[in-house]
Amino acid sequence: MHFASDNTAGISPEILAALAAVNDGAAASYGADPVTARLEAKLADLFEHEVAVFPVATGTAANALGLAAVTPPWGAVLCHAGAHIACDEANAPEFYSAGAKLVPIDGPDGKLALADLEARLPGDLGNPHHAQPAAISLTQATECGTAYRPGEIAAISALAHRHGLAVHMDGARFANALVHLGVSPAELTWRAGVDVLSFGATKNGALAAEAIVFFDPARARDMPFRRKRAGHLFSKMRFLSAQLDAYVTDGLWLRNARHANAAAQRLAEGLGRLPGARLRHPVEANELFVELPERVITGLAAAGAQFHRWEGPTSTCIRLVTAWNIGDAEVSAFLEAASRLAGR
Amino acid sequence: MHFASDNTAGISPEILAALAAVNDGAAASYGADPVTARLEAKLADLFEHEVAVFPVATGTAANALGLAAVTPPWGAVLCHAGAHIACDEANAPEFYSAGAKLVPIDGPDGKLALADLEARLPGDLGNPHHAQPAAISLTQATECGTAYRPGEIAAISALAHRHGLAVHMDGARFANALVHLGVSPAELTWRAGVDVLSFGATKNGALAAEAIVFFDPARARDMPFRRKRAGHLFSKMRFLSAQLDAYVTDGLWLRNARHANAAAQRLAEGLGRLPGARLRHPVEANELFVELPERVITGLAAAGAQFHRWEGPTSTCIRLVTAWNIGDAEVSAFLEAASRLAGR
Amino acid sequence: MHFASDNTAGISPEILAALAAVNDGAAASYGADPVTARLEAKLADLFEHEVAVFPVATGTAANALGLAAVTPPWGAVLCHAGAHIACDEANAPEFYSAGAKLVPIDGPDGKLALADLEARLPGDLGNPHHAQPAAISLTQATECGTAYRPGEIAAISALAHRHGLAVHMDGARFANALVHLGVSPAELTWRAGVDVLSFGATKNGALAAEAIVFFDPARARDMPFRRKRAGHLFSKMRFLSAQLDAYVTDGLWLRNARHANAAAQRLAEGLGRLPGARLRHPVEANELFVELPERVITGLAAAGAQFHRWEGPTSTCIRLVTAWNIGDAEVSAFLEAASRLAGR
Amino acid sequence: MHFASDNTAGISPEILAALAAVNDGAAASYGADPVTARLEAKLADLFEHEVAVFPVATGTAANALGLAAVTPPWGAVLCHAGAHIACDEANAPEFYSAGAKLVPIDGPDGKLALADLEARLPGDLGNPHHAQPAAISLTQATECGTAYRPGEIAAISALAHRHGLAVHMDGARFANALVHLGVSPAELTWRAGVDVLSFGATKNGALAAEAIVFFDPARARDMPFRRKRAGHLFSKMRFLSAQLDAYVTDGLWLRNARHANAAAQRLAEGLGRLPGARLRHPVEANELFVELPERVITGLAAAGAQFHRWEGPTSTCIRLVTAWNIGDAEVSAFLEAASRLAGR
Repeated sequence: MHFASDNTAGISPEILAALAAVNDGAAASYGADPVTARLEAKLADLFEHEVAVFPVATGTAANALGLAAVTPPWGAVLCHAGAHIACDEANAPEFYSAGAKLVPIDGPDGKLALADLEARLPGDLGNPHHAQPAAISLTQATECGTAYRPGEIAAISALAHRHGLAVHMDGARFANALVHLGVSPAELTWRAGVDVLSFGATKNGALAAEAIVFFDPARARDMPFRRKRAGHLFSKMRFLSAQLDAYVTDGLWLRNARHANAAAQRLAEGLGRLPGARLRHPVEANELFVELPERVITGLAAAGAQFHRWEGPTSTCIRLVTAWNIGDAEVSAFLEAASRLAGR
Repeated sequence: MHFASDNTAGISPEILAALAAVNDGAAASYGADPVTARLEAKLADLFEHEVAVFPVATGTAANALGLAAVTPPWGAVLCHAGAHIACDEANAPEFYSAGAKLVPIDGPDGKLALADLEARLPGDLGNPHHAQPAAISLTQATECGTAYRPGEIAAISALAHRHGLAVHMDGARFANALVHLGVSPAELTWRAGVDVLSFGATKNGALAAEAIVFFDPARARDMPFRRKRAGHLFSKMRFLSAQLDAYVTDGLWLRNARHANAAAQRLAEGLGRLPGARLRHPVEANELFVELPERVITGLAAAGAQFHRWEGPTSTCIRLVTAWNIGDAEVSAFLEAASRLAGR
Repeated sequence: MHFASDNTAGISPEILAALAAVNDGAAASYGADPVTARLEAKLADLFEHEVAVFPVATGTAANALGLAAVTPPWGAVLCHAGAHIACDEANAPEFYSAGAKLVPIDGPDGKLALADLEARLPGDLGNPHHAQPAAISLTQATECGTAYRPGEIAAISALAHRHGLAVHMDGARFANALVHLGVSPAELTWRAGVDVLSFGATKNGALAAEAIVFFDPARARDMPFRRKRAGHLFSKMRFLSAQLDAYVTDGLWLRNARHANAAAQRLAEGLGRLPGARLRHPVEANELFVELPERVITGLAAAGAQFHRWEGPTSTCIRLVTAWNIGDAEVSAFLEAASRLAGR
Repeated sequence: MHFASDNTAGISPEILAALAAVNDGAAASYGADPVTARLEAKLADLFEHEVAVFPVATGTAANALGLAAVTPPWGAVLCHAGAHIACDEANAPEFYSAGAKLVPIDGPDGKLALADLEARLPGDLGNPHHAQPAAISLTQATECGTAYRPGEIAAISALAHRHGLAVHMDGARFANALVHLGVSPAELTWRAGVDVLSFGATKNGALAAEAIVFFDPARARDMPFRRKRAGHLFSKMRFLSAQLDAYVTDGLWLRNARHANAAAQRLAEGLGRLPGARLRHPVEANELFVELPERVITGLAAAGAQFHRWEGPTSTCIRLVTAWNIGDAEVSAFLEAASRLAGR
């Protein structure tokens, strides 16, 4: 019963097979190989737009490199107070941007509210005493397991662009949001104004692969230098590109995300019915945050279930994350145990 | 006939198998998994010393993180003028150290000469107007395909330590130097005074894996933060550790290096006999630099051989790199073509 | 009627005279001169403690250099949401620390509340995914014109030190707080646990001079390098030291601060009596924030008074700052105009 | 007999007077004052060109800020091996540029030779593995006390611009070079292709004042942010601007430089005649480097003369620097002592 994180899961068989498939023979290094070229073409098709693609191995690298490309050292990135970039990346955005500031803004269900952003813009733009708002970063799906609608993104992007800010999307769980909303990748990104996307694959079945996707290649002009000087340019790039290639081939990424989301839905429905249970947020991806009676939590842990208490060791709100390969039996076992412990 | 670089080769079958072998089931993320623990223990055995180990995916990351751990922003790293850190990492050491300076020092056969270092130390130590010498970085094997002897390293380390500098070793081709010299990993590192080692595996058969190895774990105290904020902490760490684990298991790393070195020796002997040929440096690893008549070079390229002219497009000195899996037939074909073109 | 800022005022005659007094003859450069030595001795006397002193020209430099000395790049500085370092220094602390994060925490009257700090510590200490709390920064006097009591500082310092954090004090208006509280410099700093102080003189009568004061010189070991590489080491240092020397000689700094504070008190008492007026915060230094009827504000501006509306162009809360040389007549004229406009 | 450095001298009376002259009354802070506006206009006149001017207090700040404006973090600055930016600024250019590399190039008499630069360009431009050549920095007058001719500068600038590099001039002793050459400020800067100039005043009579001068204001767009976040924006800016204003008023800067240069010429002529003496470089500014018999050096030091042995404590090459206010009697006394010691 592994619900601690989607990064405790392994690699999708299709992706593992892809590594073996590209292993024969020599290939040009540092991205000059045919697999990488094919990947860029596939992502252009997928997003229905010209793209500049930079595969890297971690989400933190993708976010930090992408943000640094659109934020000067004296800039500010407006983001949700709970955003991964603000809370869980050990100052990586500050490091990569050479000192930019993240401005944490709270908002319900992990989302930035348009009004809260409007209240801060144009803010101190042009005044050299203050950090210069340079980007808005949206997490899709959010850290609360919810998903921004295309219209929400578009409204925020319009505000951002009106004031000269870029729109960054941390898509570590982009697939999960996408399949929940039932929209196209284009609708969720550039059509809604997103300028640069961290297109995550690791949590959804890759070994370690994310693509930084720029919808305006002109913005990516310095990226080859940024990536290399950060040590994120793989010499045997084909193995990074092959993961991403397999990920978007034959809908693997969507299948994996649907599987994970469906498990989250089953958990939400099952747990939601229990006495004393309360879901903190709508469940729109593969994470749920649920308040449960202490005895239920203690009992689930004792039964071997893996999960985190969300707000510290005495919290009675737990986070459950369903991975791309979570077993139906695991979900059933968890629900049965919870139900039994809750006294139904 | 692939001699352009050892990073155009693929993954050793044993390493690819290791990825599959650790893929079953869930594993704790970010390095809390058993594969990573096992790796650290194995490397302690291998080096016969307590070690702190930080797996990362690229050599540039390994070098830049390791150097930053021992060099303050106002520090200087003394290194060979041709060192990878100085020439081929796009200012990564400067980035990671927040502004330290690399001091390039020339020397024959890619090696730093003790006397040249002595002439620079203590130099400006203590004077706030000048960069503070903080580390000496040695490349093993060197960029010229030669290998420092343990005694050479020990003499340089003694000088470094006498003045409070740390000794860093860029071991992107550490295995190649080791098997050439026929010494133990301990003799080539901490017994000779090395403080931090980039233990390379990628060029010698891994997908993308290097270990930063500290022989004094106290020096590594900040490394978890440095690695994370750089985006080099893998969530699914087991797949990085598994590569390194397989690499040092059952002597794979030594076998691969011996194979590559032997091919380089064959090339050196065969080419060295040709009229008009001259080897620039002793061949002590898996690289050779050889001056050849222009018609031989042109002919080899026309025959499909992959290699680089070393000093620009009109240079008649070519670099040949033999990978862990270079075919004997490829070597033979190259030598035959060269011999024929040279008119023998 | 200049109440816009204390940095619109000029130089105290005593300080200007000191520049001329040290101008005769040659002097060793970069701080090896006797004026600088004398200054360090005087500050040790003044603070009744061994100190390491680093004169610089701006408050932003003092804060950023001092904070960087106690905060690693992966660190976090807990500070008030309205702190100068957070709002008005254009990411200087982030720049100098190579990427540390400021954590803004709100609190009444510009002060950090102990309970709010306790709720955040130890927080994520030791977890490499998160910024590491490294320092607490207090502004004295605060940006709201209030002053921390020695007991308040001591309680916060005890918390900080218990968790290994340093205590930084932005003392751009240190003198103003000191004379208001009627305590000694020692009581307001190291006796209350302060580790590093930006000892401001510019706002209180200097040309451009602040001293970074470390109460534990061991913490300052790297400061000569930090200051030099930031371009903040003056070649003709005597002229920076002479300003600070004159500042603390014969009580000039206290006289200037008392004059400014007294003017602020007169304004507070006079304006506080007006109908529709409300002081936002206790007036404990040389700043006051007062809500006034719009017609009074408009009228004052029309009468030529200089001040800022505090919360944007339509705010009816204005900030008044009294400089070290504010004229009694200016204060009287302002109060009379305000009284007349308020219809009394 | 003070010949150790021109920064041991004090402030020109005219500049000290200017500080007092602008001290009356309040003035807008942070550069919005009329003195600063006047300065910018005067410099535009002086240089016969539109300029963007940023006064700072130190030469290191001027160089580091100016270079960072034209060099990305992955960039390289080509400079003379003995340049102040490379040797004497404690990695300030690396700090301000967030990690750019200085490429030291040797050359006779402290000058970069065109051929040596041509050999390095375009070099690795466009290749993400290598630092990207971004600027050439010239020191005028050089660290050897020589001066680049306008034609030399123009040839280097043409090369730089052909490859997209900017031309930076470290003009810490700009006035000394200018009066030696007898050309106009325009001829020595933008007409010869200089893009950004550190216009030094401190060594030539100011308290602490340098102006970063951009001849294409578009390049200076980010400078207000860069300067502020570095802590180099003075709140009481009028006192920085007033120094520079007085410096260029009524030819003060030229008079001071001529005086210093003339003293250097007298020293050169007098010492050059002594048996065993040899001037290392042409004397074209206010520095000279002269080899003398050891007994002469020892005797001069014993007689109280201040100077540096140039290449370490046993060197018999000494550096003499003549300040703007060096006394004729000091020069005479030095020459007489040297002559006597040399046995004439």
